[in-house]
Amino acid sequence: MVLEVALIDVTDPDAFRAAYAEARDVITAAPGARSVRMTAGVETPTRFVLLVEWDDVAAHEAFRASEAFTRWRGLIGPHFAQPPHVEHFADV
Amino acid sequence: MVLEVALIDVTDPDAFRAAYAEARDVITAAPGARSVRMTAGVETPTRFVLLVEWDDVAAHEAFRASEAFTRWRGLIGPHFAQPPHVEHFADV
Repeated sequence: MVLEVALIDVTDPDAFRAAYAEARDVITAAPGARSVRMTAGVETPTRFVLLVEWDDVAAHEAFRASEAFTRWRGLIGPHFAQPPHVEHFADV
Repeated sequence: MVLEVALIDVTDPDAFRAAYAEARDVITAAPGARSVRMTAGVETPTRFVLLVEWDDVAAHEAFRASEAFTRWRGLIGPHFAQPPHVEHFADV
């Protein structure tokens, strides 16, 4: 299992939250996505961190290559201030 | 409840892991620390993300002001490549 940590800076936090509310089901339904958690910055309200537990990096890559990803990104992408910074982590 | 997300770049991942193994009990015992999770980068082995659930930001600040923090930081700090980037997040 790997943890996707995505740092997402947005232009309008309220608009992003509304888009995420609509998009959330798309990623939770992705094969290999065990859990999805979106968090909002306390110090920086325009910054969000998305945490997704994937079976493995390949499951995340399969999602990114899927039609579902196009819908997911189509909903939340317009609110990005810049491309998200995405990396994978494994428990120590 | 808030989630501390700390990005930690280290000079020597193996030495950092050994130091964390020794230091872990210090932070897990901190008042207001509900869970502690250290993860290591898949793409960047010198990068770690520490995730700590605190009762609130004040609980984290109290830890940072405590003698326990001096021990914690004294163990893992020597392996930092640069000061960690620490922010707090709340569930969306």
